[in-house]
Amino acid sequence: MGSLHANDIIDTTGCLQHPLDAEEFRLHAHKLVDFIADYYKNVAKYPVRSQVEPGYLRKLLPETAPNQPESIEDILSDVRSCIIPGLTHWMSPNYYAYFPSSGSTAAFLGEMLSTGFNVVGFNWMSSPAATELESVVMDWLAKLLCLPSEFLFSGGGGGVLQGTTCEAILCTLAAARDRALSRGCDISQLVVYGSDQTHCALQKAAQIAGIPYSNFRTIKTTVADAFALTANSLSLAIDSDISAGLIPLYLCATIGTTSSTAVDRLPELAQLTSQHNIWLHVDAAYAGAACICPEFRHFIDGVELADSFSFNAHKWFFNNLDCCCLWVKSPTALIKSLSTNPEYLKNKATESKQVVDYKDWQIALSRRFRSLKMWMVLRGYGTANLRQFLRGHVRMAKVFEGLVRLDRRFEVVVPRYFSTVCFRVRTGGDEAEENEMNRRILESVNAEGKIYMTHAVIGGVYVMRFAAGGTLTEERHVREAWVVIKEQVDKLMPNV
Amino acid sequence: MGSLHANDIIDTTGCLQHPLDAEEFRLHAHKLVDFIADYYKNVAKYPVRSQVEPGYLRKLLPETAPNQPESIEDILSDVRSCIIPGLTHWMSPNYYAYFPSSGSTAAFLGEMLSTGFNVVGFNWMSSPAATELESVVMDWLAKLLCLPSEFLFSGGGGGVLQGTTCEAILCTLAAARDRALSRGCDISQLVVYGSDQTHCALQKAAQIAGIPYSNFRTIKTTVADAFALTANSLSLAIDSDISAGLIPLYLCATIGTTSSTAVDRLPELAQLTSQHNIWLHVDAAYAGAACICPEFRHFIDGVELADSFSFNAHKWFFNNLDCCCLWVKSPTALIKSLSTNPEYLKNKATESKQVVDYKDWQIALSRRFRSLKMWMVLRGYGTANLRQFLRGHVRMAKVFEGLVRLDRRFEVVVPRYFSTVCFRVRTGGDEAEENEMNRRILESVNAEGKIYMTHAVIGGVYVMRFAAGGTLTEERHVREAWVVIKEQVDKLMPNV
Repeated sequence: MGSLHANDIIDTTGCLQHPLDAEEFRLHAHKLVDFIADYYKNVAKYPVRSQVEPGYLRKLLPETAPNQPESIEDILSDVRSCIIPGLTHWMSPNYYAYFPSSGSTAAFLGEMLSTGFNVVGFNWMSSPAATELESVVMDWLAKLLCLPSEFLFSGGGGGVLQGTTCEAILCTLAAARDRALSRGCDISQLVVYGSDQTHCALQKAAQIAGIPYSNFRTIKTTVADAFALTANSLSLAIDSDISAGLIPLYLCATIGTTSSTAVDRLPELAQLTSQHNIWLHVDAAYAGAACICPEFRHFIDGVELADSFSFNAHKWFFNNLDCCCLWVKSPTALIKSLSTNPEYLKNKATESKQVVDYKDWQIALSRRFRSLKMWMVLRGYGTANLRQFLRGHVRMAKVFEGLVRLDRRFEVVVPRYFSTVCFRVRTGGDEAEENEMNRRILESVNAEGKIYMTHAVIGGVYVMRFAAGGTLTEERHVREAWVVIKEQVDKLMPNV
Repeated sequence: MGSLHANDIIDTTGCLQHPLDAEEFRLHAHKLVDFIADYYKNVAKYPVRSQVEPGYLRKLLPETAPNQPESIEDILSDVRSCIIPGLTHWMSPNYYAYFPSSGSTAAFLGEMLSTGFNVVGFNWMSSPAATELESVVMDWLAKLLCLPSEFLFSGGGGGVLQGTTCEAILCTLAAARDRALSRGCDISQLVVYGSDQTHCALQKAAQIAGIPYSNFRTIKTTVADAFALTANSLSLAIDSDISAGLIPLYLCATIGTTSSTAVDRLPELAQLTSQHNIWLHVDAAYAGAACICPEFRHFIDGVELADSFSFNAHKWFFNNLDCCCLWVKSPTALIKSLSTNPEYLKNKATESKQVVDYKDWQIALSRRFRSLKMWMVLRGYGTANLRQFLRGHVRMAKVFEGLVRLDRRFEVVVPRYFSTVCFRVRTGGDEAEENEMNRRILESVNAEGKIYMTHAVIGGVYVMRFAAGGTLTEERHVREAWVVIKEQVDKLMPNV
């Protein structure tokens, strides 16, 4: 197949003969399925955090791409010997670092379809199903989250699948910025707000959008407020900026911060941003998923007054990377900032104004058929089971929290709201000594390779983060993890 | 498996029982392989451009996500009946619209691995192999393209895989902008240049980066220069801006424009940008791939003086969407603009400064293991065959061009450099009448569904674009396409 005469192809047994041939595709893709299924069977056996040293791979690979084709078997053999040792195994049941990378069978199947169809859905015309399925699925999700109707297409808003939260923030920040500029403000006057717990995506988005660094406010949170941003502290910052002749533009409030899963006080913040006409974005990257369960939904109370809301389905909603769900109340504001209308993309459907052209809702023009993955997840598991899966993760975190609380050497540092526990050992020494001991314990745990956790520093305190929620993690893994941690503490703090 | 007690799960035969279980994964992923292989076998039979009307899908799908799981068979049955009719079949051998979506068996296998491992490679530490393979593969590609050594890691530069050209332009533009701002310039002084043929990604990136719209220059090209941007016209624009107290910042030169595959005069433009200290980005989104063939490499002569260079491997280099390859001479400039360094991402490897942290080379923080796909393509086919595949596409375009030239009713409107032919019928009427006739012919061809082409307007002339290069396209498809086009012309212009 392909365009080539038979004698153009070098006949190399075991190698791909054609750029794309249905039967060759079938043969090798089946092999890959088995390769990946076997990986999942064995993933618990690997050191969770990769043990390689910087530069390990360049030494193993040739200086240049091969001139002749190599067999898929040879390449897979190199994946085993060169790539897998250099992976940190995010899919391991013993992975508790950062937040989980939430893969699933259903999402994998959806991604296969998306990659296979390989459509480029920049506008409706370029593949109507890609646009329409995304709109339908985003409405489904909005209903599951009980978002106010203004975020649904039927209510004049709408949802879009982005890659990551940084993109979602950048798009909404650009929309807020351009709305202000169109009213005659100068970019040098515009101020962006977050807390000292807000994800660095906000700072990055502000940098890219050209907001002067001096207009970026990092409002301090305190242990007394469980590291939540409060209206009181935001109000002080706003008043000070207004007095200085600046214009408050954009607040990113977080539901489930990265360091400690703190929850900003959304209802009171939303009152304040409404009053000052500040664009309120709610970043529920991690914790948003839990809000499909009625018992967690209260964490996003106040979202009624927000301008935009996002959560990362690749963090804790069984979608493989990447998948960030963003809703806005005013698609017009997004589109004004992000649209382009070149001649070569003009078409009757767009001119009819009956369709969504998602290229105008995101940074890039080209876009994959991302919604197939989410559609597969929602239909393949059903919302009742998805809720049960999420509750299972929270239950595991509670089990871990209970184990920590039973051991007098340890303390849980901040309230556990979801499936992440922030804890540390107490040495009885000063803060610097305690921090250093916790750092040593964590490094020692991770170096062993049985489990992997990461750290945070909250209010000057170094904490270990135990983020449950890995798709393969079961309660027995959590109990084993606790044993691993205790063993290291026994070793490093023998006299306590 | 998973975290759940058996009685939490609703037993529904044919449905996924677990969020991720190796054997359940194996069973269903094998089914998907056959589904997609069968799709490729049948893809030539579908109408290339989807025939659905706006809103078709919402009518077919329920209002809410299902509460209970549905079987994979049921979902795939809906893919057949609801999704496939709404696809525009970018993988069809009869697809000649926009530019091709360059899928392949090898890339699909690479994407499977990437989705399966599901690592989040924001920095080296989070999965060393993801970072290191990308650096190695980008050096391999740079060598294939004979990029100057300053673009290689060994030469102080480096490459990164982004999603799309818009992202590549936005990142480099932000770097250029911040370099200027750090020298005391004001953002309102900075000017961005492209031609009237430059992809709208430049305008979009400039909007997002906060460059005032009044400082965005769209330099007119002419038919006499084959719609290339010349140093002469750029120089006039620069001089005029300097006289007005503005600061020339960034030029995006294009090798293979979207409308007509025009080639900006890179050697002379590069002299000018060097002289004025303007950041020169070379966007070879489509045509860059061809430059791995020695006979096409001259098209990017002048890249030695550029600051950055990008091409889209998902357009014409056998990588499924998305994959944009970007090289920069100064990673430091990128990193200064795009880096963030929160406590929770701190790690020894980063502190050692021996590693690349790709989160600081792109907009988003999270990133997929994209290089697996490119690695599979380069190794699975080998560079000799990749060159032959590309030459095969160019040969097909030449065949088509020859057929057009033999028919006195038609003309080839601009030189064909690569695998895209811009042509039209001549009616003997005025330009408006000719444009309208070509528009009618194109719409009539596309409505029939046998092939799909799109249009451009170049210098006021409406042209049909025949973009060869689809992975499944063979010469016989090209000859059949020509028959389809001629039939419509016979019907709509019976008296010529």
